[in-house]
Amino acid sequence: LDYQHVQVPFEITLWIMLASLAKIGFHLYNKLPSVVPESCLLIFVGLIMGGIIYGLNDKSPPVMDSDIFFLYLLPPIVLDAGYFMPSRPFFENIGTILLYAVVGTIWNVFGIGFSLYGICQVKAFRLQDVSLLHNLLFGSLIAAVDPVAVLAVFEEIHVNEKLHILVFGESLLNDAVTVVLYKLFRSFCEMPTIKSVDVFAGVGKFFVVGLGGVLVGLTFGMTAAFTTRFTKDIRVIEPLFVFLYSYLSYLTAEMFHLSGIVAIIACAMGMKRYVEANISLKSHTTVKYFMKMWSSVSDTLIFIFLGVSTIGENHEWNWPYICFTVIFCLIWRALGVLVLTFFVNRFHVNTITSKDQFIIAYGGLRGAICFSLVFLLPDFHRKKLFIAATTVVILFTVFVQGMTIRPLVDLLAVKRKRESAPTVGEQIHIRFLDHLLAGIEDISGHWGQYYWKDKLEYFNSKYLQKILLREYDQPKSSIVLLYEKLERKHAIELAEAGQLGHAPSHPSLLRSGFLCSNDRSVITDKKLEDTLNPDVLENIQEILARNLYRIRRTGPAYNRHTLPGETEPVEHAKEILILRHKSL
Amino acid sequence: LDYQHVQVPFEITLWIMLASLAKIGFHLYNKLPSVVPESCLLIFVGLIMGGIIYGLNDKSPPVMDSDIFFLYLLPPIVLDAGYFMPSRPFFENIGTILLYAVVGTIWNVFGIGFSLYGICQVKAFRLQDVSLLHNLLFGSLIAAVDPVAVLAVFEEIHVNEKLHILVFGESLLNDAVTVVLYKLFRSFCEMPTIKSVDVFAGVGKFFVVGLGGVLVGLTFGMTAAFTTRFTKDIRVIEPLFVFLYSYLSYLTAEMFHLSGIVAIIACAMGMKRYVEANISLKSHTTVKYFMKMWSSVSDTLIFIFLGVSTIGENHEWNWPYICFTVIFCLIWRALGVLVLTFFVNRFHVNTITSKDQFIIAYGGLRGAICFSLVFLLPDFHRKKLFIAATTVVILFTVFVQGMTIRPLVDLLAVKRKRESAPTVGEQIHIRFLDHLLAGIEDISGHWGQYYWKDKLEYFNSKYLQKILLREYDQPKSSIVLLYEKLERKHAIELAEAGQLGHAPSHPSLLRSGFLCSNDRSVITDKKLEDTLNPDVLENIQEILARNLYRIRRTGPAYNRHTLPGETEPVEHAKEILILRHKSL
Repeated sequence: LDYQHVQVPFEITLWIMLASLAKIGFHLYNKLPSVVPESCLLIFVGLIMGGIIYGLNDKSPPVMDSDIFFLYLLPPIVLDAGYFMPSRPFFENIGTILLYAVVGTIWNVFGIGFSLYGICQVKAFRLQDVSLLHNLLFGSLIAAVDPVAVLAVFEEIHVNEKLHILVFGESLLNDAVTVVLYKLFRSFCEMPTIKSVDVFAGVGKFFVVGLGGVLVGLTFGMTAAFTTRFTKDIRVIEPLFVFLYSYLSYLTAEMFHLSGIVAIIACAMGMKRYVEANISLKSHTTVKYFMKMWSSVSDTLIFIFLGVSTIGENHEWNWPYICFTVIFCLIWRALGVLVLTFFVNRFHVNTITSKDQFIIAYGGLRGAICFSLVFLLPDFHRKKLFIAATTVVILFTVFVQGMTIRPLVDLLAVKRKRESAPTVGEQIHIRFLDHLLAGIEDISGHWGQYYWKDKLEYFNSKYLQKILLREYDQPKSSIVLLYEKLERKHAIELAEAGQLGHAPSHPSLLRSGFLCSNDRSVITDKKLEDTLNPDVLENIQEILARNLYRIRRTGPAYNRHTLPGETEPVEHAKEILILRHKSL
Repeated sequence: LDYQHVQVPFEITLWIMLASLAKIGFHLYNKLPSVVPESCLLIFVGLIMGGIIYGLNDKSPPVMDSDIFFLYLLPPIVLDAGYFMPSRPFFENIGTILLYAVVGTIWNVFGIGFSLYGICQVKAFRLQDVSLLHNLLFGSLIAAVDPVAVLAVFEEIHVNEKLHILVFGESLLNDAVTVVLYKLFRSFCEMPTIKSVDVFAGVGKFFVVGLGGVLVGLTFGMTAAFTTRFTKDIRVIEPLFVFLYSYLSYLTAEMFHLSGIVAIIACAMGMKRYVEANISLKSHTTVKYFMKMWSSVSDTLIFIFLGVSTIGENHEWNWPYICFTVIFCLIWRALGVLVLTFFVNRFHVNTITSKDQFIIAYGGLRGAICFSLVFLLPDFHRKKLFIAATTVVILFTVFVQGMTIRPLVDLLAVKRKRESAPTVGEQIHIRFLDHLLAGIEDISGHWGQYYWKDKLEYFNSKYLQKILLREYDQPKSSIVLLYEKLERKHAIELAEAGQLGHAPSHPSLLRSGFLCSNDRSVITDKKLEDTLNPDVLENIQEILARNLYRIRRTGPAYNRHTLPGETEPVEHAKEILILRHKSL
């Protein structure tokens, strides 16, 4: 027996196997998943495993290595999140998400830090040796909402799309803030004196870390798209590039102390549409499937390790500090959401209801990121207290909040996600309105989201697509793609029902006579097939595009001082220019 | 900049990226792949990389770590080979393959070892200090044909299926022999005296290592099939089990010093049909795609590393020894193939032609397995000579033989692989003949391959399928599965040609009126659709099964002493029994 030789891959494989089997076992009984979230059960499995290891070895089981977590377990989950991010609701609410992620996180960090410092002043608790900086450092790691935990719970409760993207988007983008604050306070802890210039440098870092991450991500995303232009003869390694480039973007960002999470999300969102157009259908299935599989396994492993790491003797149980941490986490988050939403609602027509606000505050789950960060702390005499407090906060949020959020959503009758995907009619309508609003914004000189979206789309079709797509002369609109997808699905269904055998298969027949001869016997499905013939669609699009752009180009801008049809095109341009200058 | 933190995953990702980009670059120019095999070009890229590293660092570039090779790079390739192994030609030629793999390899090991020992006795070459045992040890590692190199070259030259499986099967199965002989001679080298009992123990080990590998592989394969029975609710992790269990089988076999290659092949071949039936279509696409992708990347990395490792100062250039090694490798292999094929051809109707024999001998490429084994040798003063000789043999076989084999195949007009897949008619015919031959063998009391195949099929449908398949009450024959696959492909083609939009999509319509109304306008494709209606197929199968088994059950066995219709069924049974006893 030569165990040492194969130990590393053998144990890794066994852990993954355990995680997968736990997942299967969990889904074997249909009632279980509807009551307990999967994350809770996996932590529970981990606790049992940890207990067994502890019992057998009589020493603390190994804790989850922070390096393993940040380098190997987190990236697949974030990549999956970024690749399947619903881009429309994300960009529609980007302002609100950023407000929650940046201002909300800073609010929580300082709120929790200062109030815990207050608690430390109470002599009865014996915590006077915990300095303000240490409390702020602890605040910075405990304040961040965890994307893995949020995703695990919110995927099961099916709240409406806007609510989901607000909580989930915040949990992803607050990484930049957390990284900066955590590193700032950590370096402050080690400095003898703190100058005001250091504080200002810290503020400047926010932008560097966040925007730098976006830049790194987009660079790698575009390179990935460009690379897949050349894989036509060697389809089999296409899926690889999606994974390699996004992982490289994460590692590069981490290497330069930028936000890896932000980078990988930017990379995934940036490359998605080009890669999808370049690679084959089977490659794409593989990419999607493998991404889901990988993130699902990572997710499972994280929760199991979280459970295993909880067992042991790494903790200092100072209960007042721990309990106040939990309470302050809840209070400051609730206050933060209330105050920020008040401002958000003043500027938006489509406001966030008080029910939604409650779920946003209540859905602020903490998870493995806090846990890894607390283990990365430099050694000092109260580290074990921080570890204990973090563990309790995570278990409290995942178990208590995670398990009660579903009944609460039911009780409050929070608006749910619509079950069915939008119909093609709706999609055409939405597209039409986008064009219309872009035109209106342009005319009125307001530089809103539709204006930017339109500009981006123009830039994309004019330059990016030509560089990044293999067959850029025939760019397909998303509606045409949807139609093709529906067709393919329908065809497979037909084939599986065994109905297709009666149609002729000679390609020549199809091209010439079959269409005419078959038309007689076709019973048309009014809802879809008729309206969505590719020719008809192209027609619609052409009409839409031509007419909408014509309005922008030649239509009169509404103005108090002019009458319709009065001004010349040149005059328009001037007017729009003046309006723009004003709005600047 | 914090490079150390991300170094390991960053460098791995970069190496994989380099490999993938080299592959893309290689396929960008269509003429290149038709002249030079990919493996040669990749080694060349590796040589350049190694040269750059050598030039920059002024020390030898890192050699390929044997552990990394055996634990991480080899398994994906072997898994891919096992999973896509054409089982019919493999089992039809299993006897010949085993003869080549076991007897042929032993022949080569001792032939090369003893003749090199003879060379060492020539005083002018200054090799007197290389003992017989060391020569045999070297022979054991240089004799084994390498599956990675064989696959890389033979996949490009498209020889006929039998020739391909003979060379490729040999290269896979000789692993058991190589492992045993290599370890045997290695331990002999370290022993002070060798007893005859050790030699006999070595012979016994052949069977343990080979059959143990098969057993481990089949155990894990069946467990994998059983596990996929329960993944219905959680499709996304299905592909994972295929990889996890096969990798575990490899690691377990290696742990017990059995043949990992044999284990992973047995696992892959064993689980394939059950897993395919259990998992969803998309999961299966992912499995296939990812396996191909993974093995392709591994393959690329191996050849690049081979090139990189060649550069450096690990070599002792004793040219007589090196040249004679190359010559003996060629001579002994050619002799071995000639002698073994002489015996094989005496027992087979379908003989191996002399052209085929030449290609089998010439296709005995050496590769990364030899290279890894030579680095695993214990340190002794002539290790660098062995490394140099191995490097030259590998480069010679891959470059000279690999590049000239295609022109030789053209020149000799070796029978090529048929371009098209067998038609459905042929497949039905083959199946029919299988049944027929099984019946004939049973009646004649000859326990040939068809008899065993039939028994295995019976055991499979009676017991295994019930345990391992989720929906075991409706086992589908391979013809029905093929039909479904064709239908699906056809449907997708139709959809992509935009012809399907004219068919009704209401499921209710399909089920009731559509069939009748459409029948009028159908122009039938006589070749496929008509004959292969599922009902018709089932009919065919039922008739085949009932009649063939009836022949076996009630038909009269031909016998010199009886006339047709004379004997009773009970008599038959007796007669068959007697015949069987005789054949035993």
